Amino acid sequence: SSKKKSPEVISDSHPNLILTQNAVSDIKKELGNVPIFDATLSKAKEEIDKAIAKGIDVPIPKDMAGGYTHTQHKANYSNMQKAGVLFQILGDEKYAVYVRDMLLQYAEMYPTLGRHPQPRSYARGKFFWQCLNDSNWLVYTSQAYDCIYDWLPKEQTDYLNKTLFRPYADFLSIETPQYFNRVHNHSTWGNVAVGLIGLVMDDDELVQRALYGLSKDDVDLTKKDNDGGFIYDKDGKAGFLANLDQPFSPDGFYTEGPYYQRYAMYPFMIFAEALQNKKPELKIFEYKDGVLLKAMDALLNLTDADGEFFPLNDCQKGMSYYTTSLVSALNIAYYYGNQKPELLSVAKAQNKVQLDASGLAVAMGIRDEKAKPFVKTSIELSDGANGDEGAVGILRYNDSLNTMALVMKYTGQGLSHGHYDKLSFSLYENGEEILQDYGLSRYVNVEQKNGGGYLKENKTWAKQTIAHNTIIQDEVPHFNGDFATGSKNHSEKYIYDVSNAKVQVMSAKENNAYSGTDLHRTMVMIKEEALEKPFVIDMFRVNSDKTHQFDLPYYYFGQIIAEGFEAKTPSSLSALGSKNGYQHLWKEASGKSNTESLQFTWLNNRKFYGLTTATKTDDTILLARLGANDPKFNLRNDPAFIIRRNAKETIFATVIEPHGNYNPVTEKADGAYSEIKEVKVLFNSEKYSALSIDLKSEEQRVFIISNDNASDKASHILEVNGHTYQWKGTHYYN
Amino acid sequence: SSKKKSPEVISDSHPNLILTQNAVSDIKKELGNVPIFDATLSKAKEEIDKAIAKGIDVPIPKDMAGGYTHTQHKANYSNMQKAGVLFQILGDEKYAVYVRDMLLQYAEMYPTLGRHPQPRSYARGKFFWQCLNDSNWLVYTSQAYDCIYDWLPKEQTDYLNKTLFRPYADFLSIETPQYFNRVHNHSTWGNVAVGLIGLVMDDDELVQRALYGLSKDDVDLTKKDNDGGFIYDKDGKAGFLANLDQPFSPDGFYTEGPYYQRYAMYPFMIFAEALQNKKPELKIFEYKDGVLLKAMDALLNLTDADGEFFPLNDCQKGMSYYTTSLVSALNIAYYYGNQKPELLSVAKAQNKVQLDASGLAVAMGIRDEKAKPFVKTSIELSDGANGDEGAVGILRYNDSLNTMALVMKYTGQGLSHGHYDKLSFSLYENGEEILQDYGLSRYVNVEQKNGGGYLKENKTWAKQTIAHNTIIQDEVPHFNGDFATGSKNHSEKYIYDVSNAKVQVMSAKENNAYSGTDLHRTMVMIKEEALEKPFVIDMFRVNSDKTHQFDLPYYYFGQIIAEGFEAKTPSSLSALGSKNGYQHLWKEASGKSNTESLQFTWLNNRKFYGLTTATKTDDTILLARLGANDPKFNLRNDPAFIIRRNAKETIFATVIEPHGNYNPVTEKADGAYSEIKEVKVLFNSEKYSALSIDLKSEEQRVFIISNDNASDKASHILEVNGHTYQWKGTHYYN
Ligand SMILES: [Ca+2]
Ligand SMILES: [Ca+2]
Ligand SMILES: [Ca+2]
Ligand SMILES: [Mg+2]
Ligand SMILES: [Mg+2]
Ligand SMILES: [Mg+2]
Ligand SMILES: [Mg+2]
Repeated sequence: SSKKKSPEVISDSHPNLILTQNAVSDIKKELGNVPIFDATLSKAKEEIDKAIAKGIDVPIPKDMAGGYTHTQHKANYSNMQKAGVLFQILGDEKYAVYVRDMLLQYAEMYPTLGRHPQPRSYARGKFFWQCLNDSNWLVYTSQAYDCIYDWLPKEQTDYLNKTLFRPYADFLSIETPQYFNRVHNHSTWGNVAVGLIGLVMDDDELVQRALYGLSKDDVDLTKKDNDGGFIYDKDGKAGFLANLDQPFSPDGFYTEGPYYQRYAMYPFMIFAEALQNKKPELKIFEYKDGVLLKAMDALLNLTDADGEFFPLNDCQKGMSYYTTSLVSALNIAYYYGNQKPELLSVAKAQNKVQLDASGLAVAMGIRDEKAKPFVKTSIELSDGANGDEGAVGILRYNDSLNTMALVMKYTGQGLSHGHYDKLSFSLYENGEEILQDYGLSRYVNVEQKNGGGYLKENKTWAKQTIAHNTIIQDEVPHFNGDFATGSKNHSEKYIYDVSNAKVQVMSAKENNAYSGTDLHRTMVMIKEEALEKPFVIDMFRVNSDKTHQFDLPYYYFGQIIAEGFEAKTPSSLSALGSKNGYQHLWKEASGKSNTESLQFTWLNNRKFYGLTTATKTDDTILLARLGANDPKFNLRNDPAFIIRRNAKETIFATVIEPHGNYNPVTEKADGAYSEIKEVKVLFNSEKYSALSIDLKSEEQRVFIISNDNASDKASHILEVNGHTYQWKGTHYYN
Repeated sequence: SSKKKSPEVISDSHPNLILTQNAVSDIKKELGNVPIFDATLSKAKEEIDKAIAKGIDVPIPKDMAGGYTHTQHKANYSNMQKAGVLFQILGDEKYAVYVRDMLLQYAEMYPTLGRHPQPRSYARGKFFWQCLNDSNWLVYTSQAYDCIYDWLPKEQTDYLNKTLFRPYADFLSIETPQYFNRVHNHSTWGNVAVGLIGLVMDDDELVQRALYGLSKDDVDLTKKDNDGGFIYDKDGKAGFLANLDQPFSPDGFYTEGPYYQRYAMYPFMIFAEALQNKKPELKIFEYKDGVLLKAMDALLNLTDADGEFFPLNDCQKGMSYYTTSLVSALNIAYYYGNQKPELLSVAKAQNKVQLDASGLAVAMGIRDEKAKPFVKTSIELSDGANGDEGAVGILRYNDSLNTMALVMKYTGQGLSHGHYDKLSFSLYENGEEILQDYGLSRYVNVEQKNGGGYLKENKTWAKQTIAHNTIIQDEVPHFNGDFATGSKNHSEKYIYDVSNAKVQVMSAKENNAYSGTDLHRTMVMIKEEALEKPFVIDMFRVNSDKTHQFDLPYYYFGQIIAEGFEAKTPSSLSALGSKNGYQHLWKEASGKSNTESLQFTWLNNRKFYGLTTATKTDDTILLARLGANDPKFNLRNDPAFIIRRNAKETIFATVIEPHGNYNPVTEKADGAYSEIKEVKVLFNSEKYSALSIDLKSEEQRVFIISNDNASDKASHILEVNGHTYQWKGTHYYN
């Protein structure tokens, strides 16, 4: 008769961590009536029944990632976590027995272990080659332990606490300070592992350590981590809360980028859920103005139309919000946030839920048809703990047929996973990349490729400036590729104005990537009534104290339809340079632009694209392809169109237009030609930059940006070629 | 009350060509009750109402393909054909008026025209730059004319017949013998154009000319066409029936290949339908043992899992059985054949029908849920008018999750669109190419690419032997690339045995591609119980009178995961050769195999593939990429793995295995390693070839083929390494 959710009560009886006693009772009432929850449960049961039939295997740790003992210990914690839940929900003791017996084997083995025999990590674990994986183990196993805690005799919990769990928590923290105390997603896992087991054992010392880090006395403050990060955060804070304070901006953007945010979201949210259940007085979901809930929204917004993350910084392409860690995170955000119906549509696409109160709420919401579409619109996400260290800007245009997304990065360095990619951008159409960010150079878990770890080419190529759609001066990366310098600086937001859906503008400046040179990029998404799809204006202004060579690459995909310049194709190919990533590019063709406006047309995935750019007649145009100096064939052989110009002060003014499509069945080429005839720079100074766009329809458009006044109230007058332009605000388009 | 189809009666009243009076009356009865027919009709109505509103435009011919007058005349015939049908079915005179007024404009213009001003074709047309397009015009317009014939006053039909249609038919035939009399898909259009208008006007002279060609007195028998084809067929026959006799094999395979068969199917079937309606005594659908109906089945079998044609000979990839011409052809084959329910499932996917009795029957069949799946299984399709000029062999394996298709080409030359690709193959998984045939080098109707016509690279690359997965001797193409020589020869079928679904074998020989050298390839599709997917054995035996260099390329796609040999990657790239296609390949890496069994692993579309090959230790392995000497960027930059061996007699023995997949969301690499450890040649002579396959499971398999006895009754004994193998039939596998 009670269809209403019973009020959540705090209880000292287990489970009270993620799954709670109240949740179990609610779940039992709904079971059989909540399709997605039921299906997830039944899949977990099938999986664990199979594991139980196979028997317990707790091998002596030996292998690297991908190897046998590694894989087995991973399977063990995942199975225990599910078995714990099944025990609570289904009440069948065999699941508790399975968890108990496995824990006893771990407890027996644990005291015999030194650090893992594989020496590759700066923070070697016990069961795994790195503490990160051991933390994963403890995060999942804590949940399993909580589920059988009250079922175990007290002498057994005493034994496990003393022999296995407390020593393990100390090992991951006090004994490994370089790992535990960082501001880094790995450390978050460590903090949460220690915090969760602390909550299970009611060991408040561990919970405090998880929240606030180790005492500073235990740490050598001068040391750096082997991956280039610092051990201690700027403000000398550490622990879970420091990892919320520092890498998250007030908008919920995580400075390492969405790929690592996705990975960190699970421990962040699962610990938050546990804290909310056991220490509601902390109001963890309100912490930093609700940053955890904002982080969930930010992450969803950092995906293309397929739900795949924009590959900012180190990111393996194809990772998406369908990953299990985001199922949990999203369920928790829904339940402990404001039950936003937009989240339900994402959960529906995920088609599984977390087996707790949050997952039940989501499954019931979907069942009761409360879901609303999650429409991704234009958004700017600030970077930096205080939101004042640049941002990621996203301009979007959606109609019934197409979605376009333009992503510009004007952030800080992004910790150890950051790339030297100031003011870089990427462009998407319906979830496909038009102009790409390369992502990382790694085949995660593909053993043949360096054991699945980062490849050398991540440093020699993927992090390099030339690997990105941005300006490279004199073939040298931003900040000369120096991590410490990069980490001290960030780009500056200048304009982000999406008030007019037909003329959306973002603009940012970077004055530190090159000493003596200021960079300023303005990107505009324009939707003209007469054109089916929006086009993008890209104005990249460079201002230096002396003449340099500036390269501006565009990493397109597919087949060249018209190159638009007199391309000389050499009879043998050489690399474009010898270092800083240039050594990896084959110079396939080059030529002078010989014109004031050049148009490059290509075909990809049966769609036509055009890049029309206002060149100087002696600009060099390069066509390059990745793959040089790649002895292990680690790189993708992707192409690039590069504008090279020697100048002191100049502006690169370009329009990118998706303009047609090809149907191989009807063999019709619709819109094979750009709607844009010419792009010209009308004016460029410290105060204003103006370009003209000649359309095929014989109409002309002019775009002007104010370079030194971002006020939307300022009035401007500019005379160009005898024509007076007058406007209010940051920009003019007509 | 009459649900039964009214008996078809021959009538002299129009329409009686494609749409008949009986059909019109049947259609009217069913209208509103046949969803696919209704939808097709309503779409046609919408389209033509729009065209009528826009008004008639019959411009003076001027432009090439893609240009304004070309496009307009194409639209005109298509609109007239639909308007004629709409007039008959809907009874609204405005459609008849539209056709009449347009025809009168054509009749007025026609006498003023010489040949088309554009000089590019050997057979310039009137309304178009080539007679082929003029024939298209007449094929469609004849149908429109038939639909309004009885509605027009006799003086108007007399006028049109005399001023426009009879002269036009003579122009396309008597005045253009080089075009009209060929055995070639273009000529079929010409024959059918003349034949259809002959049937409409009851002009039997034209019908006879269409069926049997011009009188030989009118033709210079020594002349060749500009595209390399012969004017007259070997037996001196011409016309529609010769075009059925000669290029079609008894299995319905069309020697030009499926892409051009698809194009020719419309005129073949539409004329057959008209003949069946007006001259049933010809029994055209029974001609050559029912070759037209077989051709439809053959064509459907020559598609991958997506319905896309295998790109044998000149073929633009992506063309599929969804093309409109195959909607008509399939409807006609269904109605005039045995109403095979398998055809209905294809029609259902096409989701439109021809607006006549055949389309009505198909739409009703679908409505009445008669459709059965069209399952493509292994099939061999003979080539040659008598089926004795080689074949295309297809081995397939289908289960609920996967379809694999292995296509091997051991045909004749294939007329002017043929490639020098004897014993070449391609491999498909679920409609994706694993190992590709390049197809043609052309962007049909993409004006920027040579006006949409064939590119130079079609000859310098796409037709070349090195562009295919087959043996090239001394870097010289088959038949030295000579069309006349190639046309005199064909490969020989040797074995095609698919009686055991787990061990399917095809084998063919080519003794004329190189004088003094015999080539013999055996391909086997093996399904092992323990492996999820089938693998392919490729045994390519070469037997020469002296030592040559033999290259065997495999055109894979995607990312190298493990190259399997010591690859040297040069610091600058040069082309692999200077001619015969080699000039288009960059040599990206090379090395000695240094082993008796080499394994090459790659990842494409998130799936892992392995190629394990029994090398000689001094074989050279080359990694190449297309794109050298390509000044207009016409080529795709696809990669190849090439085995190079100097030998007199040898065998290339290789296993190709799809063995795993990668999930970027779970980041799991399942089956990243091949299940095959080693492949070795156990024996190779004129009589037998044997290879062993060592599996990771420590089991060994042996495959033996009899090289000189294709009898499935012969008994064989072979002793190898002290082991005696005994079997009956062509091959042994255990
Ligand atoms: Ca740190
Ligand atoms: Ca995507
Ligand atoms: Ca396909
Ligand atoms: Mg990057
Ligand atoms: Mg500066
Ligand atoms: Mg070919
Ligand atoms: Mg020979």
